[in-house]
Formats: sequence, structure tokens, C-alpha cells
Amino acid sequence: MSIEVVAFDGDDTLWHNESIFSITQEKFQALLQEHAPAEHVYERTLEKERANLALYGYGIKSFTLSMIETAIEVTDGRIEANDIKTLLDLGKSMLTHPTELLDGARRAITDAVANGYRVILVTKGDLFDQESKLARSGLGELFESVEIVSEKDERTYRRLLDEHGVEPHRFVMVGNSLKSDILPVLQIGARAVYVPYHVTWALEHADEPDPGDRWTRIEHLDELPAVLSSWAG
Amino acid sequence: MSIEVVAFDGDDTLWHNESIFSITQEKFQALLQEHAPAEHVYERTLEKERANLALYGYGIKSFTLSMIETAIEVTDGRIEANDIKTLLDLGKSMLTHPTELLDGARRAITDAVANGYRVILVTKGDLFDQESKLARSGLGELFESVEIVSEKDERTYRRLLDEHGVEPHRFVMVGNSLKSDILPVLQIGARAVYVPYHVTWALEHADEPDPGDRWTRIEHLDELPAVLSSWAG
Repeated sequence: MSIEVVAFDGDDTLWHNESIFSITQEKFQALLQEHAPAEHVYERTLEKERANLALYGYGIKSFTLSMIETAIEVTDGRIEANDIKTLLDLGKSMLTHPTELLDGARRAITDAVANGYRVILVTKGDLFDQESKLARSGLGELFESVEIVSEKDERTYRRLLDEHGVEPHRFVMVGNSLKSDILPVLQIGARAVYVPYHVTWALEHADEPDPGDRWTRIEHLDELPAVLSSWAG
Repeated sequence: MSIEVVAFDGDDTLWHNESIFSITQEKFQALLQEHAPAEHVYERTLEKERANLALYGYGIKSFTLSMIETAIEVTDGRIEANDIKTLLDLGKSMLTHPTELLDGARRAITDAVANGYRVILVTKGDLFDQESKLARSGLGELFESVEIVSEKDERTYRRLLDEHGVEPHRFVMVGNSLKSDILPVLQIGARAVYVPYHVTWALEHADEPDPGDRWTRIEHLDELPAVLSSWAG
């Protein structure tokens, strides 16, 4: 039976995201260079983000708070308030950064709509950030529905399929994160298309699942229509 | 025609929220007492929150970031990193604060369910905070649906009514904020029950609308069933 719903991830699938975090990380490391080596700052920030995840959730505000906490700890409280102001400014500039679409993003969505699929966005993170990014992306009107969730796990996907009245084998998730977009979707019996981004946040790392007929890996969104029609038969 | 959907606000309608912000504000003012009078700190924080709203949205993480920025400005950059660490800790302690239900909250929901209304939660703010508070409230299972939105305006309410397939005159919003729970709901032709909380965030202040047959004010959630049945006839 053919595919009914095609769900796209947002960050690093339709628009650039992790690259903006990486650039900010570099600026953060440069700010602390008199206090600690770049690699050390990176590791400590990651530890802090991991520790704060259960309290803060995902997103730029969470990252900004974790940077500030890391900066205070790495410098043993010697960082100046004006440098912390710089970190606040880095966070704000991430929040206002233009939403830059990945090559082929709009076409992938419009093709799917034109081919009669119900097309939705399923994106994880801060509600306010994500709505703002979506608005700036110009893609909002293309989706039948937009689902902003705090975590992409099996429970979330089960709920979404239920709400949208779609059976697992007729649902495809398209995304760049094995951990969030591929593994839990396969786990509930649905289908997935993995489109890796050139950089992955360390907390999203996962191994590729065994090859199977319910998921595939593509290198560019332009390959998506062929995958969907291969599953139509 | 009788009411079909009863929607409850969360913060300061079902559980205490603003009181936790107020307590944190007092601690913040005490921390800066050598630098500026309490009233000045309060005013500057409020200005900062207002200025940051379009960028950060609502919630505790936003408030924490605004406190830090205010502290740096009010002290002309002289605040010590360890005091900023204290502000991070204040934010974290807000995030882990137990969700304390208002008197009659659970009963108001179970009564509405027992009387055959479809009962939903419509709460504004940070997705992660709100989900976490709801989980800690123990009320989650009572709602047919939970809607966490970034802003409660006419557009949001129109979308919600549409998604839930309910006509405006059969929808009642119950909440403590005139600005978010009452005025936009009346504006789209739906009904509202205003239950004031003892303290209102300055950015939520609004005047009561003119008396009318589509809204009423109650002093305690226990008065809700009588209002709903008065609208049933």
C-alpha cells in the first residue's frame, strides 16, 4: 500500500541550523582562549548541555544558558560581566539569524504535495524558536500541519500518527538525525529517509540501523521523489 | 445551544506560577541591593522582559536570560560571575519547583468531564517548561487534548477551534489573564470565565471588558459548574 503522509524534519533537513551553533561555538572558544584551550571549552560545553537537557530542553535559549554556566566554571568565576554580555549577544544573534534553506528544500515539499501526499513538518525544540524559524523560512504555508515537539521518541511518533489518522507503513519521516528522525520511526513500524547533514550535534549521534526495506539513505533531497515512488508499488 | 468544549489555562489558573516569579524577583532584587534600589531593579527587569519578548518568548529560560542582562546593565558590568551563577541557579530552581495546584483545580476539571464537556488545556509559554509542569501536576490524563501555544491571540484561538471542530458559542475558555484568556476569546465570538489570581504579571495587565452575556468573573474555580450550566439552557 502506498505512502500517505510525508513528514519533514526542520533543522538541518530543510534549513541550516547546526552550522550556526558551530560558528557560535567557535566564537565562544575564542572569547575564553586566555582561560582554556578550545577543545576543553567545547567538551565542557557539551557536558553542560547534556546535564541541562532534562531541565532546559533543546534550543538556543538553553544553549545560551549552558554557555554562560560553562564560561563561569571554566574561568573559576573570573570571567567579566561584559564577556557574559557578549554571550547573551551571541545567543540573540543566533535567534535572529536568517533561516537559510537547504538546497532543494522547497522543491522536495512542493513535489510531495503535487504527488498527492499529505505533507507535515515535525520539528523538535523550542516552540518559540521553531515557529519563528518556520515563519522566516517562507515554507509554513506548504504544510498541512506543523508539529513542534519537545522530544522525538517512539511515544511522540505514535501520538502523531494517531492524531493524523495514518497507519505506520503509510508514514515516512524525512530527516538528518538517526537518533530523532530514523530510529524511533523504524521502531514503531513506519518508514524513514535519512538525509545526513554535514555536521551533527554530538548529542544526536547514533549508529545507522541495519539495512532494511523501510528506510534508506539519500545524499540530497532531490532523490526523495524516487524513493517515495519506489515505496508506492 | 449548550457548551461543548471547556478549555482551561494552566499557569495561575490550575497551578501557581506568578508567585514563583515574584519570589525570584525578590531574591534578584536582594542580590543587587548594593547596586540599585529594589524598585529600580524591578522596573529594569520588566523593561528587559518586554524588549526581549519578541526574541525569547515566554517562560523561565527567557526570564533567566533577562535577569542576567538586567544585572549586567544595572551594575554597569560590575556584577561578579559568581552572582550570575546565582541567577542561573535561581532559574533552575524555578524549573524544578513543584507544580502546586490551586484549590479546586482538579475538581473543576473532573466535574467538567463528568458533565459531558470535552475538556482541553490551552497554555502559553515554553513548550518544555509547560510539558514538565503538566507532568508534575498529575492532571495530564484528565484532558482530551493539550495545546501549548507561543501566544494566545485571536489567531491562535481561531486555529484551535478549527482543529477541534467546535463553534465559537460552544467554546468556553477559563483563565486568569484578561489579556490572554478573556479578551481574544470574546473577540472571536466565544465564551470566557475569568478567575483572577492574586498577582498578575505586569505584561499581562488589561482592563476588564464591558459586562456581557458571553463572559463572567468568578472568584473560585468551584463556581465554574454553575456558570457552565447557566449557559446550557
